Amino acid sequence: MGCKNCCNACLQCLFGYETNVMLVINNKGVGALFRLIQFLIIAYVAVYVCWIQRAYQDTDSVISSVSTKVKGNILTNSPIEGVHVWDVPEYVIPPQGENTFFVLTNVILTPGQRQSKCPETPSEVTKCESDSDCKEGYSDVHGSGVQTGHCVQYSDKIKTCEVQAWCPLENDANIPKPAVLGAAEDFTVLIKNNIQYPKFKFKKRNILPHINSTYLKSCMFNRKTDPDCPIFRLGDMVTEAGEDFSVMALKGGIIGIFIDWNCDLDFSERFCIPKYSFSRLDNKNPENNVAPGYNFRFAKYYKNNESIDTRTLIKAFGIRFDVIVFGMAGKFNIVPTIVNLGATLAFLSLTAAICDWVMLTCMKDRDNYAKHKFIHLNQNGDSMPLSSMETSSYGTP
Amino acid sequence: MGCKNCCNACLQCLFGYETNVMLVINNKGVGALFRLIQFLIIAYVAVYVCWIQRAYQDTDSVISSVSTKVKGNILTNSPIEGVHVWDVPEYVIPPQGENTFFVLTNVILTPGQRQSKCPETPSEVTKCESDSDCKEGYSDVHGSGVQTGHCVQYSDKIKTCEVQAWCPLENDANIPKPAVLGAAEDFTVLIKNNIQYPKFKFKKRNILPHINSTYLKSCMFNRKTDPDCPIFRLGDMVTEAGEDFSVMALKGGIIGIFIDWNCDLDFSERFCIPKYSFSRLDNKNPENNVAPGYNFRFAKYYKNNESIDTRTLIKAFGIRFDVIVFGMAGKFNIVPTIVNLGATLAFLSLTAAICDWVMLTCMKDRDNYAKHKFIHLNQNGDSMPLSSMETSSYGTP
Amino acid sequence: MGCKNCCNACLQCLFGYETNVMLVINNKGVGALFRLIQFLIIAYVAVYVCWIQRAYQDTDSVISSVSTKVKGNILTNSPIEGVHVWDVPEYVIPPQGENTFFVLTNVILTPGQRQSKCPETPSEVTKCESDSDCKEGYSDVHGSGVQTGHCVQYSDKIKTCEVQAWCPLENDANIPKPAVLGAAEDFTVLIKNNIQYPKFKFKKRNILPHINSTYLKSCMFNRKTDPDCPIFRLGDMVTEAGEDFSVMALKGGIIGIFIDWNCDLDFSERFCIPKYSFSRLDNKNPENNVAPGYNFRFAKYYKNNESIDTRTLIKAFGIRFDVIVFGMAGKFNIVPTIVNLGATLAFLSLTAAICDWVMLTCMKDRDNYAKHKFIHLNQNGDSMPLSSMETSSYGTP
Repeated sequence: MGCKNCCNACLQCLFGYETNVMLVINNKGVGALFRLIQFLIIAYVAVYVCWIQRAYQDTDSVISSVSTKVKGNILTNSPIEGVHVWDVPEYVIPPQGENTFFVLTNVILTPGQRQSKCPETPSEVTKCESDSDCKEGYSDVHGSGVQTGHCVQYSDKIKTCEVQAWCPLENDANIPKPAVLGAAEDFTVLIKNNIQYPKFKFKKRNILPHINSTYLKSCMFNRKTDPDCPIFRLGDMVTEAGEDFSVMALKGGIIGIFIDWNCDLDFSERFCIPKYSFSRLDNKNPENNVAPGYNFRFAKYYKNNESIDTRTLIKAFGIRFDVIVFGMAGKFNIVPTIVNLGATLAFLSLTAAICDWVMLTCMKDRDNYAKHKFIHLNQNGDSMPLSSMETSSYGTP
Repeated sequence: MGCKNCCNACLQCLFGYETNVMLVINNKGVGALFRLIQFLIIAYVAVYVCWIQRAYQDTDSVISSVSTKVKGNILTNSPIEGVHVWDVPEYVIPPQGENTFFVLTNVILTPGQRQSKCPETPSEVTKCESDSDCKEGYSDVHGSGVQTGHCVQYSDKIKTCEVQAWCPLENDANIPKPAVLGAAEDFTVLIKNNIQYPKFKFKKRNILPHINSTYLKSCMFNRKTDPDCPIFRLGDMVTEAGEDFSVMALKGGIIGIFIDWNCDLDFSERFCIPKYSFSRLDNKNPENNVAPGYNFRFAKYYKNNESIDTRTLIKAFGIRFDVIVFGMAGKFNIVPTIVNLGATLAFLSLTAAICDWVMLTCMKDRDNYAKHKFIHLNQNGDSMPLSSMETSSYGTP
Repeated sequence: MGCKNCCNACLQCLFGYETNVMLVINNKGVGALFRLIQFLIIAYVAVYVCWIQRAYQDTDSVISSVSTKVKGNILTNSPIEGVHVWDVPEYVIPPQGENTFFVLTNVILTPGQRQSKCPETPSEVTKCESDSDCKEGYSDVHGSGVQTGHCVQYSDKIKTCEVQAWCPLENDANIPKPAVLGAAEDFTVLIKNNIQYPKFKFKKRNILPHINSTYLKSCMFNRKTDPDCPIFRLGDMVTEAGEDFSVMALKGGIIGIFIDWNCDLDFSERFCIPKYSFSRLDNKNPENNVAPGYNFRFAKYYKNNESIDTRTLIKAFGIRFDVIVFGMAGKFNIVPTIVNLGATLAFLSLTAAICDWVMLTCMKDRDNYAKHKFIHLNQNGDSMPLSSMETSSYGTP
C-alpha cells in the first residue's frame, strides 16, 4: 500500500488543481469600484501603453549614411579681385559632400602673405611705446605671430610690437557688408540618405520608391507641395529655421538639418518616410557667448616668382549645415509585450487590495464581511471567527 | 485591558500571516491543463526571454573612434598627363584617415582654368541663336557660370550662351573607361577601431590582444583564414558587398564597412570580438535616382607665370568607404531581471484564471466545483451556497 | 421570471465582488518571515530601482553638434626652412573645426617632388644587385612608387630598384626629436557643443547660461577652479589623459574628449551640465600594434618655373582630438513606472509562495495548517479534509 500511496501523492501533486476559494459579496458599491478600477487599468493599457507608447514593440536605433551635393554659381565684383565667378569647388569646403558641409557666404582675403616681420594689428595688448614694451619670443594666444621684441610704426600715430608671422597680417576688423556671397541663398543641395535598422534587417533611402528620376531633376523641397523632394534651397532651410539668410551670411552659423526616421515597422514600410526639420544650432545671442557665428581660416599656398612660399589667407565665414539623422524603429516583439501586459496584470491585483480595504473599513457590513473572509487559526490549532479571537488567543488569563 | 487589546491587534497585524484558502480538485483534465500552461510559460521564460533575448541584461550602446590608413601606388599613362604615379596623398581625399575615407578611382582633369569668358557647354537650355536668347546675370543651377548675355560660337555649328566662369569649362560628357585608377582594387586599408561601453567601463580595440605585430605587418583580412586581421583589400570589400570593382570604379559609389560589436559581457571579454560586413549604401539603380555614383569636384590652385590665379579642376569619381560601428553590450542587471521575471510570474496568474474558467464551464462537475469555490454572502450578511442564492437574495417576492 | 433571473445574473456578474477567503495564522515565525521578505522587496524597489537606477524614467539618447576653434602660434627655426611661424591655418588640418580636429606636432617635409624616376629607399625588399632583381610595373604595397625594372645606385654602396614616383622620395627614417611643434601644448581650443534630447524637446549648450562673455574671453578649463570654461589647453587635456605631451608629440596619437550629458530631467535643467573627461584612444603599446601613433601624408601642389607640377610632401604627425558626446536623459514616464512597480508587485506574490512552503513543511502545526488551508474535493463531489483524503479519494477498495 506504501507504493500506492506514494503514487497517489505524486499524481495528486501533478494533476490536483488548486484554486482560490472566493467570497462573493453582493455589494453594489464595492463591486462598482472594483469594475471601475479594472476598467481604468485596462483602458490605460489599451490606449496609452499599446496605442500611444507602442510598448509592445522592440526598438532599434537608426544607422545612417549621408552624401550631399551643392549646386549653384555666383558672380561677384570686388575692387581687389575684380569680376569673379564662384563655383562649387571654391565655396564648398571641404569639397566632399558628407553629412556636414560648409557653404562660404562671406570672405576676407589676404593675398601675398609670406614669412617675414611686420607690426602686429593694434590692440590694448599689442600697442607699445618702446622696445621694452615688447617681449622677444612671446606669442599671445590671440595674436598673429611671435614677437621679435621690437616696437615699430604701425601707422603714422600708432606703434605696435613687431611680430614674425605670415605678413602682411590679416585685417578682419571690417567684415564685408552685405556678405560677399549673400546670393548663396539660391544654391541648392541634394541630400542622399541611406538608413538601416540592423535588428530588423530594414533598409531605406530618403529618395522614396515612387519618385522618378525626371521629377528629381527639377524638384525643390517644399513642405506643402513637394515634401518628398530631397533637393533643398539653402535660403528655404535657413528661413524654416527662423533665421534671416542675409544676416546669417555676414558672420556665419550652424544650421541643423534633422531627418527623423521614427518608424512603426508593424505597418507597411510605405509609411516609413523621413521627416525633415531645420533649426539653428549655434548661439546667435551676443551675451553669454564667445566667437559668435561660424568661421575658420585656410590658405592657398604657392611659390612666387622667386620660389618663395607665399599664400593667400582666407578667413571664411559661412553656414555649416549638419545633417543629423535620428530615429527609432519599433516592431512587435513578444518580450516587451509580455513584460508590459504582465506588469499591468500585476497592477490589477492592486485593485483587489484596494477593494478589500474599502470593503473591510468603509462598508457598514464590514464585520460580517471580515468574519467570512478571514478564517482565524490560533496556536492551539483551532479555527475561530474574528469576533471571538481576542478572548481566546491573546485573551486575559 | 484597552492597551493590551491594542498591543495584541498590532502584534497580530505585524505577525499574523494571511494565506489564501485553496480548493483542491482531483480532476486530471484541469490539473493537466494547469501544469501544461505553467510549463509553457516557464519554458518561454527560460528559452526565449533568458537564452535568446537575454532580457535579464542591462544594455549600453557602443562609443567608437576610428582611424584608417590606405596604402598602394598606381602608375597611369594618359595622353594629357603622361606617365604619372598616384600615391596616397593624391588619391585619398581628404588625406586624413577618419571613419569615412574616399579613394579616387576615376578622374576628369581640366587644367589651366582661369576666370574669363567662354561659351557654355551645349544643352537644351544653353543653346542659342542670338544674344536675345541669353540673359545677362542669369545663373542656371546646373550651369557652369553666370551668363554674360552674349550668344557665341561653341563649335562650327553650335552657338551657346557665353558665361563668365573658370574657363575652359570642364567637359564631363565622356567618363574615362576603363577607370583611370581601376587598379585601386589592390590597395589595402588598415582600420583601427577603439570602442567603449561607458556604462560597463569596458574598452576594446579591433586589434585583438592575441595578434602580434609581425602578423599585422603582412596579414590581409579573409573571412575564413584571417578573420581578425584589420587590413582589408579594397577589391575584396567591394566583392563581399556584391559589386564589381571595375564597374563601380567608373562612376563611384559608397561602400559601408560595418563593424558589429554586439557583446555579451557576462562572458569573458575574449568572446567580445568585432564582426565585419560590407554592403553598398548608395543606389546604383538608374531608375528612381539622381546623380548616381559618387563624385565631387575640387581644384588645385596656383599662380601662373603672369601671377594670375589659375587652377586645375578635378572631377573626382571614387568609392567612399563609411566605417559604421554599431553594437550593444549586455550585462546581467537585477532591474531588468526582476522586471522580466516578475512580469512572467504575473502571467502565471493568468493560468489560474484560464483553468478556473475551464473548470467552471466545461467540466461536468462544474456546479459542485462552484458551490465549494464560491461562498456567497447576501446583503443580509448570511452566507449561502450558489444553488440557493437566486431565491433568497434576488428571489421572486 | 426568466428575464428577471437573467437580469439578476448580469447584475451579480457586474457588481458582485469576489474576494479571496484568507486563513489567518498567528504564527510569529511565519509572520515575521513574511514581513521581512515584503520589507526587502519594497526596500529594493525604493532604493535600487527608483533611487539608483531611476527605472521610473523614460530615456532618450543625446543628439549633438560640435564646433571647435584652435588658437596659438609657434616659431620654429630649422636648417631647411629657416625661421617659420606656424599659425592655425597651417597646423590645424583640415582647417574647419568639427568634432574631430587634428593639431600638427611633428613634421617631415619633402620639398620639390615631381613625377620622375629615382632609386627606392633601401629595405630588405627593395635592395637589388642587378635589373633581374627588380620587376617592371611591380608596386609593393609598402613602397613609394612603381618599379621600372632597373637596379640603380642609391648611395655609394647600396643599389636599389628604381621606381617611377614623386621624386625625391621622402626619407622618414628619422623623426625629428624633439618634435618640431612640441610647443603646441600651449595652444588652446574652444569647444562649442549644442545638444538636444528630441523626445523631451530639451536643448542645451555647453556654454552655460550663467557664464558671461567677458569670462569666456579669458578663462581656461580647470577641473577645480574653472570646471565650466569651454576653452581647453591642449597640454592639460593630454596630461589628464595620463600622457606626456612631449612624448606623444613625436609620433602622434588620438585623444578622446568625452562630454557626458547624462541628465535627470525631473530636476531643474540647471543641474543638467556637461562633464568633461579625457583619455588616449589609440594603442601606444608597441606590442600587438601596427603603425603606432597617428600620422598622414598630404601635399601642397604648385607649378615650378617651367610649369611642371611640383609638390611639397608633408608627413604630418600630430594629435587627433575626437570630441565624443554621449549621454542619456531620463524623465518620469508612466509606462516604465507601471512596468517596474507591477513587476515588483508580482514578486511580492512570490513571498506568499515561500511563506506557504515554510508554513506547510517546517512548522510543527503544519498538518493543522494544511487541513484548514486546503479544502479537498474528490471526484464524487464531496469535500473533505486532507487527513481523510487518501482512504476516500484514491483509497483501497
